Amino acid sequence: MSEERIILAHGSGGRLSHELVERVFLPHLGSEPLRQLNDAATLALPPGRLAFTTDAFVVKPLFFRGGDIGRLAVCGTVNDLATAGARPLYLSAAFVVEEGLPLTTLERVAAGMAAAAAEAGVVIVTGDTKVVERGSADGLFVTTAGVGTISAGQDIAGQNARPGDAVIITGSLGDHGIAVISAREGLSFSTEIASDVAPLNHLVAEMLASGEVHALRDPTRGGLATTLNEIAGQSSVGVLLREDHLPIHAGVKAACELLGFDPLYVANEGKMVAFVAARDVEAVLRRLRQLPYGAEAAIIGEAVAEPRGRVLLRTTIGGTRVVDMLAGELLPRIC
Amino acid sequence: MSEERIILAHGSGGRLSHELVERVFLPHLGSEPLRQLNDAATLALPPGRLAFTTDAFVVKPLFFRGGDIGRLAVCGTVNDLATAGARPLYLSAAFVVEEGLPLTTLERVAAGMAAAAAEAGVVIVTGDTKVVERGSADGLFVTTAGVGTISAGQDIAGQNARPGDAVIITGSLGDHGIAVISAREGLSFSTEIASDVAPLNHLVAEMLASGEVHALRDPTRGGLATTLNEIAGQSSVGVLLREDHLPIHAGVKAACELLGFDPLYVANEGKMVAFVAARDVEAVLRRLRQLPYGAEAAIIGEAVAEPRGRVLLRTTIGGTRVVDMLAGELLPRIC
Repeated sequence: MSEERIILAHGSGGRLSHELVERVFLPHLGSEPLRQLNDAATLALPPGRLAFTTDAFVVKPLFFRGGDIGRLAVCGTVNDLATAGARPLYLSAAFVVEEGLPLTTLERVAAGMAAAAAEAGVVIVTGDTKVVERGSADGLFVTTAGVGTISAGQDIAGQNARPGDAVIITGSLGDHGIAVISAREGLSFSTEIASDVAPLNHLVAEMLASGEVHALRDPTRGGLATTLNEIAGQSSVGVLLREDHLPIHAGVKAACELLGFDPLYVANEGKMVAFVAARDVEAVLRRLRQLPYGAEAAIIGEAVAEPRGRVLLRTTIGGTRVVDMLAGELLPRIC
Repeated sequence: MSEERIILAHGSGGRLSHELVERVFLPHLGSEPLRQLNDAATLALPPGRLAFTTDAFVVKPLFFRGGDIGRLAVCGTVNDLATAGARPLYLSAAFVVEEGLPLTTLERVAAGMAAAAAEAGVVIVTGDTKVVERGSADGLFVTTAGVGTISAGQDIAGQNARPGDAVIITGSLGDHGIAVISAREGLSFSTEIASDVAPLNHLVAEMLASGEVHALRDPTRGGLATTLNEIAGQSSVGVLLREDHLPIHAGVKAACELLGFDPLYVANEGKMVAFVAARDVEAVLRRLRQLPYGAEAAIIGEAVAEPRGRVLLRTTIGGTRVVDMLAGELLPRIC
C-alpha cells in the first residue's frame, strides 16, 4: 500500500481541507473551540493584562532526539508567554505544508503538539493549513501564536533588570542546538545529546512564587550570549558572567569543540534566564532545583551598573572578555 | 549598486536579526508594544469574551492588482475576527523568508501591512522572522494571528443560522481569485480586475448595529459555495440561492468562462456572507450600500428548513441544482 501524502487540494479550503482537519488535527488537537470550526475561536479570559506572542518554526529536520517541530512550536510560544510572567492559556497553529508530505508526518507532529500542550496546560483553539507545490517549501513550517493573562502587580520585562540582580539559568546550555545539528548531519554524538525542548510555564510560576523576578527570557536562537546582550541593552545594565558557573553537559562541550561552536551562542528551547533580586536568589534557586526542568539551575553571574549594555565573561583562567551578540549565523533552521 | 537581499544571518536571532527589525519592521509597524522588543507583548484588553484566530498566507505572486501578501495577511485575520462579531484589536505577524529575497520586497510588504492595519484600526504588537535557505521556501510566507473582544450579548457563529434568515453577500464575487490568477499567469484581463482584499471590521460593526445577524463568514478559499456549505452543515439548515441575484462583475464572469471556473468557488478577500433575521434584512442592506465596501451588497438567498446541510441554486433559467463544497483544488496559493 502506498503511503498517503498531502496534495494541493488539502489546502483548497474545500472538502479535502475539511477531511484533513477531521482526520489529522481534530483527533490530536480537538479542543472544544477547535471543534466548532468557526473562523475565530471565542473564549473566556480571566482578568488581567493580556500577553500575546508568535513564533514561526522551520527547524530541520522535523524530528530530532528529544523533540519535533510540533513540540517545539508549542513550547516556544508557551515559553515566550511565560517570559512576560503570564499564564499561557490558548494557542493557535498555522501549517504551511509542502505537497507530498506524508500524512503520517503531519500526524506525528500533531501528536507532539498535543502532548506538549497537555503538559503546559494550554489549549490549541484555532488553526489554518496551506499547501504549496512541491519544491516551494521544505516539508513543513509551523507558526504558533499564544495568549495568556498576567496577574495584577506582575511586571516582568527585559527593561526591568537592575544592578545587583543575580542572573540565574535554569539548566544546562546548548542541548537543543547540538541535538538538532546532530540529527541533521548524522553526527555520532547524536546518540547522547537530546534537545531540552520543554514548556517552562509551570517552572516560571514556581519561580515567581519564590522570589522577586525582574526579567525573564528563554535563550533560544543566538543563545545565552545574545539574550543577555538584549536584556543588558534594554535595561541599561552590565552583565558579569562567571564561566566556571555555566552548566554545560560534557557531550555538548565536546560537540562544540569538534564543531567550533561556542556554547554561549548555541540555542536552548527549555531554559530560562532570570534576573532575580539578590536577596531572593537562594530561595528561587532552591525551588528551581526541586523541579524537573530546573534540577541543574545555577547562578551564573550578576547585573552591574557598568559597563551599561555590555556582557562580560570572567573566564576560568581569570581573564575577562566581552561577550557580544551573535554576529552572522551559527546554525540555520535550529527552530 | 547591487540590491540588498535577505541572508541566512537575518534569521539568526543575533545582530542581523535585530538590524532587520530596526530597519524594515519598526519603521512601518512600530507600535509601542513592538518597540519594547520583548518576547511577548503585554496589552490592556477591554472587557468581553476573547476572539482569537490565525491564518497562514502563501499567495503567489506576492503582489497583485489591488493588494499584496501583507495587506492580505492583515485583512484575512481582521475579517476572521469580525466573523465572530469581535472588535479586532491586536495582530501578530510571523515571516518565513527565503534567502535572497530583496529587502525592498519585505519593505513593500511591511508597508502593505501597515496601511491595512491603520485602516482596520488594529495594531501589530508582536512578530517573528525566520530565514530558510534558497530553494526551501518560495519568497515569503506570512502568518498572522489576531485577538479581539466580543461585547456581552453578541453571539454570532456558523452554528446560529436559522430557517427564514435572509442571506446577504456584501459585494461582488470572485474578484480576488481572478486578480491573483491574472497576475500569476500574466493574463490580459489583469488590467481590469483588482482584488477586493479589504478589512471588513467597520462594515461588520455597522451591520450589527443595523439588525440581528446570526452568522457571518468571509468566503475566501473555496468561495461562496464552500462557505455556505459549511454554515448549512454547522447550523443544520438548507440554503436556497438565487443565481440572478449573485453580484458578479462582467470581467470576472468573462475570465471565469475563459478559464472554466465557476465564480461560486472563486476566492474573495473583502466580502462577507451574512445570515440575517428576515425582518431586519432591508435595514441591514440599506446601511451596507452606504458603505465603501458594501455598495454592491445584495440579498442572494435564504436559509430554509430542508434539505438540511445542503445548498441549492435556483438557476437563471428556472432549474435547481445542488451546490456542493469545493472538491479538488481550483487555484493553489490564492491566499
